[in-house]
Amino acid sequence: MTYELEHYAFGVDIGGTSIKVGLFTTSGKLMDKWEIKTRTDACGKHILPDVAQTIEKKLVERCIEKSSVQGIGVGVPGAVRGEDYVEPCVNLNQWGGFDAAKALSELIGIPVKLANDANIAALGEMWRGGAEGHDNIVFVTLGTGVGGGIVVGGKILSGVHGAGGEIGHIKVRHGETETCGCGKMGCLEQYASATGIVRTAHQLIMESNEHSVLREIDSLTSKDVFAGASRGDALSQKVINSFAQELGRALATVSCVCDPEVIVIGGGVSAAGQSMLDAVQKQFREYAFPSAEATQFHLATLGNDAGIYGGVRLVVSSPRTPRV
Amino acid sequence: MTYELEHYAFGVDIGGTSIKVGLFTTSGKLMDKWEIKTRTDACGKHILPDVAQTIEKKLVERCIEKSSVQGIGVGVPGAVRGEDYVEPCVNLNQWGGFDAAKALSELIGIPVKLANDANIAALGEMWRGGAEGHDNIVFVTLGTGVGGGIVVGGKILSGVHGAGGEIGHIKVRHGETETCGCGKMGCLEQYASATGIVRTAHQLIMESNEHSVLREIDSLTSKDVFAGASRGDALSQKVINSFAQELGRALATVSCVCDPEVIVIGGGVSAAGQSMLDAVQKQFREYAFPSAEATQFHLATLGNDAGIYGGVRLVVSSPRTPRV
Repeated sequence: MTYELEHYAFGVDIGGTSIKVGLFTTSGKLMDKWEIKTRTDACGKHILPDVAQTIEKKLVERCIEKSSVQGIGVGVPGAVRGEDYVEPCVNLNQWGGFDAAKALSELIGIPVKLANDANIAALGEMWRGGAEGHDNIVFVTLGTGVGGGIVVGGKILSGVHGAGGEIGHIKVRHGETETCGCGKMGCLEQYASATGIVRTAHQLIMESNEHSVLREIDSLTSKDVFAGASRGDALSQKVINSFAQELGRALATVSCVCDPEVIVIGGGVSAAGQSMLDAVQKQFREYAFPSAEATQFHLATLGNDAGIYGGVRLVVSSPRTPRV
Repeated sequence: MTYELEHYAFGVDIGGTSIKVGLFTTSGKLMDKWEIKTRTDACGKHILPDVAQTIEKKLVERCIEKSSVQGIGVGVPGAVRGEDYVEPCVNLNQWGGFDAAKALSELIGIPVKLANDANIAALGEMWRGGAEGHDNIVFVTLGTGVGGGIVVGGKILSGVHGAGGEIGHIKVRHGETETCGCGKMGCLEQYASATGIVRTAHQLIMESNEHSVLREIDSLTSKDVFAGASRGDALSQKVINSFAQELGRALATVSCVCDPEVIVIGGGVSAAGQSMLDAVQKQFREYAFPSAEATQFHLATLGNDAGIYGGVRLVVSSPRTPRV
C-alpha cells in the first residue's frame, strides 16, 4: 500500500468534561487517540475551535493533507436534527441550538457530520464492537443513566424529535414517586442504571431486616450489588433480579418496535459480564414476541472508544471495507 | 396525457376470507378495485394462481399491456422476510414458507414485492392516507386485535425476525391471567383492541354494582362502550379511560424507540373518531419523552383500502410523484 492511497477520518466524542478524538483510516483502523478538556465556559464557544485546533495540530504532526481526510464525525450529548443541527446541551452549559456541523466544517475545511452520543456509540459498536457484522442493532449503555442507540440497516434511527433510541425513558413502572432526570416518573433509567440498582438496593435494605453483605458497605455501588449476588447474598440477588426484569422486559418492548438482530449492552454496569447478560436475556425471552426470542445478546467491546469509532462510521463512504 | 405514457401498478391485500385487489396509476390514483374469495383449502395452493388470474383478466378488460405495469405489491397476513419470503400464515391454513414474490412473478410475468399486511397498510396511510406528506410514521389498527406498522424514512421497519411493528404485543400489564393470541400474557392487544375494550367492560360490570347503560346490552361491542361514554355513562367512561391509558402509554414507549412525526390510528375502534384520538393523545403526552410530546395524532382515512395503496407504494419507483 502506498502512502498516497491511504485515507483518513476523525471521530470526535464531545462529553461534559473531556472531548475524545480518534484518528482512523477509513477502513476503521484506529491510528491515534487522545483527549482534550471540554471548555464549557462562555456558553461553550471554545468547544468547536478547540476541536478544530487539536485536529489541525494532529494533521501537521502526522503530515496528513486535509484532502486525504474524508470527514469528521462528531458525537454530542444532546438531540441532533438531521446530521448537523444540535439542540442546546444541558451538560455543555446550553451550548447548541445551531448547525454545529457547518460551523466546524467552516473552521477546518473538512466535511463534518453530527449525531447524538449514544446513537453514535451504537454505530461504533455495530461497526467494530459487540455487534460487528450486523446492521440492525440496539445498543443500551448502563451508567449513571440509561442511554440507548438504535441502528436499522446500518443507519441511526434518530427519530423526528431526537427521541429515537431514548430507551432509558420508556415508562416501565406505575406508581413511582421520585422524578427521573427527564422530568417524568417510572422511567427504565430509574431502575436499570447503576444509580437505579443502588437505589433498589437501599429500598430493599430499608424494607426488611434480611441479612445482607450490602448492609456493611458504606457507599454502595452497583458493582457491590453484583459482587454480593455472585457470592450468594440473597438480597443482592433480589436487586439483580429486579434490574434484569425491568431491563429485559423493556428490551422485549423495544424488539416489538424495531426487532433487532443483536442487542448490545455496555456502560459501567456491563462490567458485571456474562451473568448479567444472561439474566437480562432470560427476562427478555419471557416477554418478547415469540419470533424475536432468538435475538442475540452481546456485551459491548469498545468501552469509551465506541463514540469515536461511530463518528468515523458516520462519515466514511465505504463502511463495509474490511479492516486493514 | 396520452394513453401510452400512463403506467400502472396493482395493490393486493390477501386476507383470511377475501383478497382485495386495486389497479392504480403509478402516481397513486385508484382506477379500479374489487375482491375475490380467498381459497384457503388445499393448503392455500389456489391463492397465487387466483391472484394472477384476476389481474390477467383485468389487464385484458382494460386493454393494458403487461409492459406498462410497474409491479404488484402484495400484503399477506404473516411475517415476511425481505420483500419476498412469507412465513406460514395461521389465517391462511399455514400457506407460506416460501418465496411468494418469486412464485407470483413467475405466474404472471410482472415484478412482485411482498410485505406484512399491517406494515403495508402503514405504507398506504403514509402515502395517501392519514399521514400523507410524512415519511416517519407509526400506524396502529384497532380491530379484533391490535396491529401495527412502522415506517421510517419512507420504508417499512419490518425487523429481523418479522417482529418489527408488532405493537399489539408490547407487554403493558403484569399479573394478567388470560393468554393472548401470541401465547404470552399482558399484551397491549388484550386491552386496546375492540375485543379488549369489551373484556374490560365485562370486568368492570362484574366488579361493581354501579349503574350503567352497558348492563342492558346483550352482546356488548366496543361501539356500545364509546356510545355509552359519549352519553355520560360513568362506567363506559372508565373503560375508555383504561383503554386510552394503555394505548397512549404504549405509544409513548414506541416513540422512545422510533420517534415518529405522526401516529395514525385506524381499524374498527377508530370509528369512535376525534374524542378517542384526543383521549389517547392526552395519555401519550403524559408518558412521552418531553421532546416527543409534539407528535401528531391522526385518524386513518383509507379504511380497508390502506393495504392496496401500500402495495402500490411498495412497488412504484417514483413514489413522490404528485397525484394526477
